[in-house]
Amino acid sequence: MKHVVIIGAGFGGIRAAKALARSDIQVTVIDKRNYHLFQPLLYQVSTAGLSVDDIAYPIRAIVKGLKNVQFNMDEVIDIDLNTRRVIGKNGITNYDFLVVATGGTTNYFGMKRVEEYSYGLKTLDEAVNIRNHILRKFEEASFEDNPDKQRALLTFVVVGGGPTGVEAVGALSELIHHVMAKEYRNIDFKQVRVVLVEATNKLLAAMPNDLSEATVYTLTKKNVQVRLGVQVADFDGEKLSLKGGEIINTHTVIWAAGVRAGDLINKLNIRQDHLQRAIVNEHLQAPDYPDVFIIGDAAHFEQNGIPLPMVAPVATQQADVAADNILNLISGKPLGQFAFKDVGNMATIGRNAAVLHIGPIKLKGFLAWLFWSLAHIWLLVDFRNRAVVFMKWIWDYLFYERAARIITRQ
Amino acid sequence: MKHVVIIGAGFGGIRAAKALARSDIQVTVIDKRNYHLFQPLLYQVSTAGLSVDDIAYPIRAIVKGLKNVQFNMDEVIDIDLNTRRVIGKNGITNYDFLVVATGGTTNYFGMKRVEEYSYGLKTLDEAVNIRNHILRKFEEASFEDNPDKQRALLTFVVVGGGPTGVEAVGALSELIHHVMAKEYRNIDFKQVRVVLVEATNKLLAAMPNDLSEATVYTLTKKNVQVRLGVQVADFDGEKLSLKGGEIINTHTVIWAAGVRAGDLINKLNIRQDHLQRAIVNEHLQAPDYPDVFIIGDAAHFEQNGIPLPMVAPVATQQADVAADNILNLISGKPLGQFAFKDVGNMATIGRNAAVLHIGPIKLKGFLAWLFWSLAHIWLLVDFRNRAVVFMKWIWDYLFYERAARIITRQ
Repeated sequence: MKHVVIIGAGFGGIRAAKALARSDIQVTVIDKRNYHLFQPLLYQVSTAGLSVDDIAYPIRAIVKGLKNVQFNMDEVIDIDLNTRRVIGKNGITNYDFLVVATGGTTNYFGMKRVEEYSYGLKTLDEAVNIRNHILRKFEEASFEDNPDKQRALLTFVVVGGGPTGVEAVGALSELIHHVMAKEYRNIDFKQVRVVLVEATNKLLAAMPNDLSEATVYTLTKKNVQVRLGVQVADFDGEKLSLKGGEIINTHTVIWAAGVRAGDLINKLNIRQDHLQRAIVNEHLQAPDYPDVFIIGDAAHFEQNGIPLPMVAPVATQQADVAADNILNLISGKPLGQFAFKDVGNMATIGRNAAVLHIGPIKLKGFLAWLFWSLAHIWLLVDFRNRAVVFMKWIWDYLFYERAARIITRQ
Repeated sequence: MKHVVIIGAGFGGIRAAKALARSDIQVTVIDKRNYHLFQPLLYQVSTAGLSVDDIAYPIRAIVKGLKNVQFNMDEVIDIDLNTRRVIGKNGITNYDFLVVATGGTTNYFGMKRVEEYSYGLKTLDEAVNIRNHILRKFEEASFEDNPDKQRALLTFVVVGGGPTGVEAVGALSELIHHVMAKEYRNIDFKQVRVVLVEATNKLLAAMPNDLSEATVYTLTKKNVQVRLGVQVADFDGEKLSLKGGEIINTHTVIWAAGVRAGDLINKLNIRQDHLQRAIVNEHLQAPDYPDVFIIGDAAHFEQNGIPLPMVAPVATQQADVAADNILNLISGKPLGQFAFKDVGNMATIGRNAAVLHIGPIKLKGFLAWLFWSLAHIWLLVDFRNRAVVFMKWIWDYLFYERAARIITRQ
């Protein structure tokens, strides 16, 4: 029986495992974490709207029903494509076919100090760290007599105007002005600054211009200072330096300005792009290694001369094709070619506000927000979480509440 | 305007703040954490049934509606009863009246190694640590080839047969045998041992004998080995030594064998009992300091010659009397005496099983469990959490699920 090893239990890895379930093969999923993370809602954990386990689900619970799929919780440290072995901290796994779905990580573009002092928004632990940090800064500000120091404590900067940055900054501003403003009597909330910094001249680059401009307008109305065409030079934990010389005094920088492939991909000795992604062929195979498929954020795939973006729909669609092609190889059939079907773009900006672009449909405001909410609830892994998240959102919508404002890890 | 400072936002502190709300006085609540913790359900976080923020609620959200109450998140490091000052890490607070509601902490009875290697079950961080640890031990066991080492990884010991120990061990056994047993194909679940160790010859000391014996019976049916009359001598992280010489090979000891007052109470220079509790007079005042009231787990109060137990109903009833007496002192009225009204005892043993003793009523089994569940949902601080917990319990009851099985903090 052929053995397929899938590294990574993100959107791509889990989808590949499901696509290979009930086949006459053995499948092993390896991930260093014991849960699948619903990354699109990570910013809601960082802004105290959802709990950690609302958007994370045990991998074992997912694969429980797939008879031929097993899970190894292990951190892969090397991959030997020639001897077909995956080397983990806990042991070595041999494979006949490999699916590399190791995903992406935050890209600090080599700025070491920014990496050290700012917060990424890619992992569950980072999201909880951001939540703890923001809540702590308000508690510190409530004790601070020096107005300059207080203002620095109350200045929050999100870098990056893609969906993650826009959603995070919108949720943060609402957390502060709708919820926390009622609870700190000795803080003047006019002192609070929430800033979104974007290097280009456009938010949500993938969106049509009018929706992009509507996003700027909506964020501004939600008390976010949107700074376009501004690049970060450095951050030392207290001073954010912008190119051109401006300095923003702040203790809080959330870095949503870029992603790149994770470092494991470097071990493959395959040609990579400037985001570390391995360049795959039209069947999603590693060049020279027809038994190795690379998908999702780990893979560089060009369509019409443009590399596909690092988003979940690319990963899941590639997972299906990679799984099919493994079955094709086993049964001696010709391989299918991958072609991404654009499913559209959407981003929520906050309460009653989102932008959505699907085929010919462009939508903004309440209807887009409703669609976004329902789509994301539907996409959550299990029904219990769907029900819980649905209820929390209804509740928070009605009562302007964020119950997860708990500072953990004293 | 008189200023009342309340140290501690547990059951006693929050109740005192509410009792003093809308009075013509100023109230400051100080706590080192930013949340009120619903401790009776902490064991459900440690066994992956509930999330951190299901049982924790921001103190600021609680006091938001109380116009004369403010909150300082600060760690109190000293109290000067003579100059009436509370000294915190962030600053000094003067008071006219003080309510010391600093609560209890785990009592390791001086066993330093046990304290270092076992897990207490008093704080949110401890509960999450236990959850992470248990889940990790199963993942490690799934890799372990040596049967003795595997068996040690799969041996879980809870020490202490009070309500916390009984509830924790019952929930742990169900987590393992109802949920995890379906998900680890290469672990033989007959190898798993869940042990409850109790030093006396009775579980749930406050219960009538028949309910206590029913508890042993029910736990045994739930695959828990109940060891009565057995005392712990030492634990080094891998070997639990019992008095008499027996050694249990285990990586997991949850210590629910005792509580004592927190260390802050030592700063008061008031006579204390062997659990560090300050001995108060019939009005709940510190002897010689009529402006200082000590309540809950921090206070030693004898009724009919027996010290009251360290449980939430004592704390809340004392909070009411202390608050009344502060108002009495201000208005020059005579002080009220405290007398505890027993509200009964209950403990849940797991699915469909609890024991309950309220006045003349003794109940066990499904009905007691239903009453326990509804009572605990009702007692949760806010409605959103009540609704979420209610839904999660219904769900987990129907589907034998524990969705919070997430190993955080990599």
